Amino acid sequence: MSLTDSVQNKEPGVITCKAAVAWGPGEAMVIEEVELSPPQPMEIRVKVVSTSLCRSDVTAWLSQAQASIYPRIFGHEASGIVESVGQGVTEFVEGDHVLTLFTGECMRCRHCTSGKSNICQVLGLERKGVMHSDQKMRFSIKGKPVYHYCAVSSFSEYTVVHSGCAVKVSSNAPLDKICLLSCGAAAGLGAAWKVANISEGSKVVIFGLGTVGLSVAQGAKMRGASQIIGVDTMQEKYEKAKAFGVTEFLNPNDTDEPIPQVIKRLTDGGADYSFECIGDTGMITTALQSCCDGWGLTVTLGVPKLKPEITAHYGLLLTGRTLTGSLFGGWKPKSEIPSLVDMYLRKEIEIDDLITHNLPFEEINKAFDLMKSGTCLRCVIHMPK
Amino acid sequence: MSLTDSVQNKEPGVITCKAAVAWGPGEAMVIEEVELSPPQPMEIRVKVVSTSLCRSDVTAWLSQAQASIYPRIFGHEASGIVESVGQGVTEFVEGDHVLTLFTGECMRCRHCTSGKSNICQVLGLERKGVMHSDQKMRFSIKGKPVYHYCAVSSFSEYTVVHSGCAVKVSSNAPLDKICLLSCGAAAGLGAAWKVANISEGSKVVIFGLGTVGLSVAQGAKMRGASQIIGVDTMQEKYEKAKAFGVTEFLNPNDTDEPIPQVIKRLTDGGADYSFECIGDTGMITTALQSCCDGWGLTVTLGVPKLKPEITAHYGLLLTGRTLTGSLFGGWKPKSEIPSLVDMYLRKEIEIDDLITHNLPFEEINKAFDLMKSGTCLRCVIHMPK
Repeated sequence: MSLTDSVQNKEPGVITCKAAVAWGPGEAMVIEEVELSPPQPMEIRVKVVSTSLCRSDVTAWLSQAQASIYPRIFGHEASGIVESVGQGVTEFVEGDHVLTLFTGECMRCRHCTSGKSNICQVLGLERKGVMHSDQKMRFSIKGKPVYHYCAVSSFSEYTVVHSGCAVKVSSNAPLDKICLLSCGAAAGLGAAWKVANISEGSKVVIFGLGTVGLSVAQGAKMRGASQIIGVDTMQEKYEKAKAFGVTEFLNPNDTDEPIPQVIKRLTDGGADYSFECIGDTGMITTALQSCCDGWGLTVTLGVPKLKPEITAHYGLLLTGRTLTGSLFGGWKPKSEIPSLVDMYLRKEIEIDDLITHNLPFEEINKAFDLMKSGTCLRCVIHMPK
Repeated sequence: MSLTDSVQNKEPGVITCKAAVAWGPGEAMVIEEVELSPPQPMEIRVKVVSTSLCRSDVTAWLSQAQASIYPRIFGHEASGIVESVGQGVTEFVEGDHVLTLFTGECMRCRHCTSGKSNICQVLGLERKGVMHSDQKMRFSIKGKPVYHYCAVSSFSEYTVVHSGCAVKVSSNAPLDKICLLSCGAAAGLGAAWKVANISEGSKVVIFGLGTVGLSVAQGAKMRGASQIIGVDTMQEKYEKAKAFGVTEFLNPNDTDEPIPQVIKRLTDGGADYSFECIGDTGMITTALQSCCDGWGLTVTLGVPKLKPEITAHYGLLLTGRTLTGSLFGGWKPKSEIPSLVDMYLRKEIEIDDLITHNLPFEEINKAFDLMKSGTCLRCVIHMPK
């Protein structure tokens, strides 16, 4: 890594650093030396400290649908330290601790100013592998541009993000833990609190007990839910799930009875809330069916691995069910995520136990294997010091 | 009609009266002499005064799916006068003016007592052609039982309904008008007010400008919506729609541009609320796509004529849209419908202009033809005096 330019001129210049580059869908990452542009106006360059793998990194990497935008640097759940700032940035200075944000907040569009949406129209989820502001890339290898992922690309020693796609957090917080609040853990808590707004004494069913599902459980427990049923095919997840608030475990492989029927029996008519945290659109109908008539709310959080179409019988809706989506738990990321970090510091929310694995950057491919195996909740990648 | 038994004994007995009997799916009704049991415990017998046709009568009558439950008496949107009451009924007396309710309210189940549901678990939508309490029929022809529809069967001079499936209304209200508040008009107003809870200044799009759609428009206008776009393929509906609050009319046949794209352009990013009032599950995706990111709410009201499955791309939900259903506008029917009748009497809501046709009972088949043609909003059937 060479910081010569920025050190000499006090103006950030191009740096070189190591990044995990995917050369094609599903192909093992290669740690390459890449060039990284200086931050453009309103952007910041961040030294990545920790970055965890989210299931959606794996899903995107395996997908053939975006085969044209390679080589590419994945990673979107990360913490780091500001290395330099671009023109116009007044909010960050070198040395600030930050979380990156895969969906940003411009603070100005009608969604950011609405009070009821976190779907920023300027810095929302980026799907084309480029930066929001100029539709270009900041990374290159020997001059050949390398595509981004969610305009974050944290599987790199350094990265450039829009200043609206990062948030300053307390410098007391351990960066190798709070990186989970950059996506998965926050997504689950927000789905429970902000999107579903779970009320005390209610009955909850969660499909999929990964990081997101367990964080929904934690959020439900903290709201005083009386029953939290976790549905997952991996029996070994149950012990940990209990610690996060799951009161009953249901393994679909253990029963011939249709899941909604079991849940209706266990909950005396259906859950008040159901959460689809698997990323399987086929489970949405099951999640709707598992809810009660009248006020049952199904929240879909997952990014589907396969079929993007949701199908449901209209009667499920007509009898009073509601289906809604949750992107990043409904959090306005810049405005609200710092308070989650503070809650973590006050030990009000649990993150550490979601981290099942830690690996050095060089072993990033092992993290992908772990995530694919299903036994890993979160694997934190520790970048070189 | 013979009231001999009840007149002589002061105890209601079997009566005979005329009813429009459907002998098979899609077969023209035949006005038959039927026997009608006395009201069983907690039931009332009602002299039907006016009954209007709802699109769902036509849909059910055309459907082959329920071919086994014929002969059958349709009709569920009606007003009448209590003729006699069954054992245990204290709420009604002979002579009370009532609206029938196709979905009842027992006032006791966890839904009726919840404050957040109108999906009564005891007297909810009846689909098997029988009465709720004993799964039997009250009508017969020469001893052969005749199936009910929605436990109302108002296409008859007299009918028997559960006391939880009727509501007493002001005797000042014209029964030949307020029958529309027994289903269609109330369904639309409730969808706008109770289910969507439309806020002032918001942008609304309504798919299908029938009685339900126009009532949604009326509800939206009364809430101060700034833009109410009506989508319908029948240009001739536009004039009347304007009177009900529709500010812009969109005929899909007049444009090659996809409807959601047109609506996004007209509303600067998508409607705040969209309502599917056609009964076409295929339109649900269009309705979702026509809503804005972040807080767009799609309400589905229609009973589908064909495919019962709703399909939608998960991304529409993930970006902040919500899909919900509205059965009878979310009204708790016994508790809330009388206030709508009072609003009508105070001229605060408009119903009369939804009635495009009036016919005597003998011409009921013509009403079905009118409804199928699409030009009829509501045809009120006037029963013999």
